[in-house]
Amino acid sequence: MKTIHRATDTLLALLLVAFMAGCATTRDPLPSWNQTASKAAIVEFVGAVTDKNGKDYVEPVERIAVFDNDGTLWSEKPVYFQLLFAIDRIKALAPQHPEWKTTQPFKAVLENDVKALAASGEKGLLQLVMASHAGMTTDEFEQIVKVWLATAKHPRFKRPYTELVYQPMLELLQYLRDNGFKTFIVSGGGVEFMRPFTEEIYGIPPEQVIGSSIKTKFEMRHGKPVLVREPEIFFIDDKAGKPVGIQKFIGRRPIAAFGNSDGDLQMLQWTAAGDGKRFMLLVHHTDAEREWAYDRHSKIGRLDKALDEAEKRGWTVVDMKKDWKGIFAFEKVK
Amino acid sequence: MKTIHRATDTLLALLLVAFMAGCATTRDPLPSWNQTASKAAIVEFVGAVTDKNGKDYVEPVERIAVFDNDGTLWSEKPVYFQLLFAIDRIKALAPQHPEWKTTQPFKAVLENDVKALAASGEKGLLQLVMASHAGMTTDEFEQIVKVWLATAKHPRFKRPYTELVYQPMLELLQYLRDNGFKTFIVSGGGVEFMRPFTEEIYGIPPEQVIGSSIKTKFEMRHGKPVLVREPEIFFIDDKAGKPVGIQKFIGRRPIAAFGNSDGDLQMLQWTAAGDGKRFMLLVHHTDAEREWAYDRHSKIGRLDKALDEAEKRGWTVVDMKKDWKGIFAFEKVK
Repeated sequence: MKTIHRATDTLLALLLVAFMAGCATTRDPLPSWNQTASKAAIVEFVGAVTDKNGKDYVEPVERIAVFDNDGTLWSEKPVYFQLLFAIDRIKALAPQHPEWKTTQPFKAVLENDVKALAASGEKGLLQLVMASHAGMTTDEFEQIVKVWLATAKHPRFKRPYTELVYQPMLELLQYLRDNGFKTFIVSGGGVEFMRPFTEEIYGIPPEQVIGSSIKTKFEMRHGKPVLVREPEIFFIDDKAGKPVGIQKFIGRRPIAAFGNSDGDLQMLQWTAAGDGKRFMLLVHHTDAEREWAYDRHSKIGRLDKALDEAEKRGWTVVDMKKDWKGIFAFEKVK
Repeated sequence: MKTIHRATDTLLALLLVAFMAGCATTRDPLPSWNQTASKAAIVEFVGAVTDKNGKDYVEPVERIAVFDNDGTLWSEKPVYFQLLFAIDRIKALAPQHPEWKTTQPFKAVLENDVKALAASGEKGLLQLVMASHAGMTTDEFEQIVKVWLATAKHPRFKRPYTELVYQPMLELLQYLRDNGFKTFIVSGGGVEFMRPFTEEIYGIPPEQVIGSSIKTKFEMRHGKPVLVREPEIFFIDDKAGKPVGIQKFIGRRPIAAFGNSDGDLQMLQWTAAGDGKRFMLLVHHTDAEREWAYDRHSKIGRLDKALDEAEKRGWTVVDMKKDWKGIFAFEKVK
């Protein structure tokens, strides 16, 4: 009888587990999304490609989803956070570079002269990036980024930059992974600037982060190998560079792509042009109160041509104000 | 009583499953490896980094293992298989290039003139690679490689090249994955030459294959986006390039590295220099009968400096003749 009792207990435990699993699958996986067309389109797509008996079924190995970072997973205002990092870094290094007091674009940074900084253009920006991002080993750079992320605060929200990530997108990343997707970041930002936080914040490991990068060089220093970051561009993962980066790093065409600006247009086009069911989504920044509102005329994160193409092709355009119940995890959702 | 019977059945089924799982873990995961020091070192390492209560435990996300391809996972004689592909491709394209009949290094290829081909040196080799690997879209190139792999035969073994993979290494790849490792290829070979077969043959998906590559360019052709392969080097993933490639593509230092030649030395040094327990292995080609025997004086796959360093540092050196019961899956293991 003892055996039978134990067996009955096992059965009860199994039933309980099955019941709880049942509950888990009926729980809304996207609670920060309002019940609008955007959410319905996501759920419909995921349902279709994971339905083994459906015509749109996609094998798990082919379920590649790519996400832009700036403006898609976290905010990008007042300017890209990596540029704010570069500015802080220039200021920190200034005592070792007295010549910067009289040389542009460094002078502009040290004097908080936005106009002079803007006037230095792309060339000036590149100089700032190289001075702040090169000249150290990869291990040293990782530490510098980690310290900055742990201490720097966003000027408007007075919080660490890693709190400026969109709660609805975090839920979307998890929802896709729960459905067998492999999630990748494909960003114009620096790959070694992102990797120190993507695993903890997004659940995306370093090997699934694709971004722009500078050259690195293998060297032996006191018998120990190091990789030294050099002041020369290796790869720009933006615009037409995004499909190139996807091919170089993933080697497989995504079936879903998520962006927010014209810099993501080619990535969405490349994703859309594959066979079978596809999903393309743009985050449209429409919420000046809770975040920012900008599109066709913004210098940072301009959304113009891609918005036209999304309308023409029927891609999903998220209206942040209407579609998202909450923007950031730190807000209290009403 | 019916419920109790069903419960008892469930219990029996569970016991059966547990028993079978027990059997599976005691089965030798490396049956093609003889019981030598090499095998013992592998098993000891995997046991140590997966033992949750041991001092050498490594979290699964950090269990990155990198493998060279040519000479480590499949053969590389008489020359790298990709070079044989390039030669076949040049011959196939020759009718469209009458000028090749009188121009080196193409003339040498068309006339099977090994001496003239060797005389054309690295510059000639590069010309052959570009003529055979560039000028088409990535999708077109993938098809060309697939057709070649399906039809070309190795000159000595008269079998498809994908059968020239080492059975002991296939078992090792699977053994590592079964123990929570993520396995990557880090090869000097072309990444888009390898990806069409790595998933099926090695169980390694395209996004875990790192290799050399040429530039690609995003273009719209008749309203459809394509990536066009251009005759210009993008990245050489060999020697000091291997740690650079690992950092660019994986962004995490491996804890285990497997190679066979001086081209793998820096990858093994980079792996060895990390904190905690590490495993470095070189495949030493010592079996002229079943495969090939070569090391310090070979033009292809030279193993000289790396062999010295392995001896000095106590890295594992596989003696193919002694350590491997079988070399290829198609052989009958005695």
